[in-house]
Amino acid sequence: MSKKKKLPLEGIVVLDLTNVLSGPYATLILADLGAYIIKVEKPGGDDSRKYGPFEGNRSGYFISLNRGKKSIMLNLKKKKDKLLFKKLLINSDVLIDNYKLGTLEKFGFNWNYISKNYPKLIQAKVSGFGESGPLRNNPAYDIIVQAMSGIMSITGRKKNEFVRVGTSIGDIVAGLFSVIGILTQLIHRNNTNFGSKLDLSMLDCQVAILENAIARHSIQKTIPVPQGTDHPTISPFGSFKTLDGEIIIAIGNDKLFEKFSSVLGDKNMAKDKFFNTNSNRNKNLQKLRKKIEKKLKEKKTDYWIKKFTFHGIPNSVINNIKDVVKDKQINSRNMILSYNYDSMKNLKVSGSPLKFSFSEIKKPVAKAPDLDENRMEILRYFKLI
Amino acid sequence: MSKKKKLPLEGIVVLDLTNVLSGPYATLILADLGAYIIKVEKPGGDDSRKYGPFEGNRSGYFISLNRGKKSIMLNLKKKKDKLLFKKLLINSDVLIDNYKLGTLEKFGFNWNYISKNYPKLIQAKVSGFGESGPLRNNPAYDIIVQAMSGIMSITGRKKNEFVRVGTSIGDIVAGLFSVIGILTQLIHRNNTNFGSKLDLSMLDCQVAILENAIARHSIQKTIPVPQGTDHPTISPFGSFKTLDGEIIIAIGNDKLFEKFSSVLGDKNMAKDKFFNTNSNRNKNLQKLRKKIEKKLKEKKTDYWIKKFTFHGIPNSVINNIKDVVKDKQINSRNMILSYNYDSMKNLKVSGSPLKFSFSEIKKPVAKAPDLDENRMEILRYFKLI
Repeated sequence: MSKKKKLPLEGIVVLDLTNVLSGPYATLILADLGAYIIKVEKPGGDDSRKYGPFEGNRSGYFISLNRGKKSIMLNLKKKKDKLLFKKLLINSDVLIDNYKLGTLEKFGFNWNYISKNYPKLIQAKVSGFGESGPLRNNPAYDIIVQAMSGIMSITGRKKNEFVRVGTSIGDIVAGLFSVIGILTQLIHRNNTNFGSKLDLSMLDCQVAILENAIARHSIQKTIPVPQGTDHPTISPFGSFKTLDGEIIIAIGNDKLFEKFSSVLGDKNMAKDKFFNTNSNRNKNLQKLRKKIEKKLKEKKTDYWIKKFTFHGIPNSVINNIKDVVKDKQINSRNMILSYNYDSMKNLKVSGSPLKFSFSEIKKPVAKAPDLDENRMEILRYFKLI
Repeated sequence: MSKKKKLPLEGIVVLDLTNVLSGPYATLILADLGAYIIKVEKPGGDDSRKYGPFEGNRSGYFISLNRGKKSIMLNLKKKKDKLLFKKLLINSDVLIDNYKLGTLEKFGFNWNYISKNYPKLIQAKVSGFGESGPLRNNPAYDIIVQAMSGIMSITGRKKNEFVRVGTSIGDIVAGLFSVIGILTQLIHRNNTNFGSKLDLSMLDCQVAILENAIARHSIQKTIPVPQGTDHPTISPFGSFKTLDGEIIIAIGNDKLFEKFSSVLGDKNMAKDKFFNTNSNRNKNLQKLRKKIEKKLKEKKTDYWIKKFTFHGIPNSVINNIKDVVKDKQINSRNMILSYNYDSMKNLKVSGSPLKFSFSEIKKPVAKAPDLDENRMEILRYFKLI
């Protein structure tokens, strides 16, 4: 519709003081949306520059989170660098940090100072526990908020056998909520002409994604436990053994279960009083699992995938990361990007799921900066040289 | 700053055709930000109205996802209701649905029609695999995108022993990205005066949160496997056994490991050539685990929590959902809300982690609508009666 294909955040300048994962994940999304991200790195740079895997002396971890950003190294303890930082602040729209609580304030930048001197500036502060409450000064990492929020207590094979969610959702979900916060603050500034501050807690964000666990506990008084691959209230809805591996089956209602029984080759199952309704199947899941697996074990996963797909029974293999990188559906959506800068030969990183009618789906993958690489460009951008 | 404490999305009208989780989670966040959400329900209502746990005949699951929205029941197959729907469209800013691909089009509302007749309308389409690619017409549920995306392949106790993430992150992360998309589209409309369409795939969203797994695979050529509670590259960073349970410890660097060793009472550990650097600790984690647990098993979890916290060693208990609902930090941030409408006596639901300087932190929890409850209010809002 609009003739000039500008990205929505073009012209928005983000001063990005964040480190490692939660904040960098947020500003990666903002970069994909067109914002100009100035990664202000401490002497030595973002800690994740030292995280493996490496190709040459560059971190694949760092690159996957920082493509499309500009780097400048500043030591905010030094007068000269602080002065430059203040000049950058004048021309920025958003300031984001995930320092320990009080660090930015020690450098002289508390919210009072910021809102008085830069009244249109949007500030986003990401921390483990937020700026209030008894634990506000405690250190937090992904695994700590996964454990404290209850997410870990419902993830695992069985009661008291917990595992960590294999991706750092403690950080990543905080990153996603930060982006929601910042975009909301941009809209608020459009309406009011004023900046604002977001006080985001990683722990709060984990509690916000507990789904039905809190309601279940408060009504049933029971304590939710991990259930392997099964769904707490829908059955069968999980992983089942075949002759040569496993298959995911997701049967959301009674009608679909009837069809599933027939395709599986055990029509009577759907009439059995133990399995005729979802709530009965849920109650008798172990018995049902045996019955289903007895049939599934007659053939290989591949056979069942084809058969179930043909008959419209929701199913899936369990892909490993190698499968994912090659997957046709995922690649057709441009979700696996090839990064080809510097010494990197075809490093793969994940793409953006935000496919808008106004944006090009294919564009070259932007470079992740080396430490302080863009100092001159940034100073020129702000007409400071 | 702004004198009138209006929420940023006040005045934004969302026509919400979504069902169960991904879409309703997105519009719950938009409702919390002030948008007017018109939940257009099919005859019989949102499927999740039939999901337990129940209090009386109302679903706690439904309530936890739909507080603050307005409900109207429409049968889009009927002429009269379709006509009313078109009148609602004229006055709406956002249209969101998570129907099976092609359903909205069957009702006559494809993007060509919408962009021609409602050029300022923002459309967000959430589906399992998106509107392109070989699997676009396949059905998908949370467990299916968890399995296909590789998330399940890195979550579990050990190789080939996978579990589902205990909360439906397949749906929830798609909900979060939908909100990011819609807010971006609102900004785009501010800039261009035109609406746009978002084509969001649940599977794409899961691939976008794989963090370092893709980069690890593409550089090291190995296939990432589940690692229980451990972090793939940082050690010790996970759960360890004590005399009466488990404790989470998160040691991010060598200096902190030195301090940890001393507080644990085994100073020499930090000098041991097997454990003196993070990469050595990571390589020899099983050996390290034995050494650490030998000490930890001398005392109860409570003792260690106090001691580690006092000395600034990042640690945590593994909270269950009952602990979470009572937790002082979580409650001090207003993250557990009490819902007290209808027959509900103190149903607990989770709050919003978006704490802005311009919004009141405490406000009454909004009601979730009964089916078709707000028909007259909605018609009056649009001056249709």
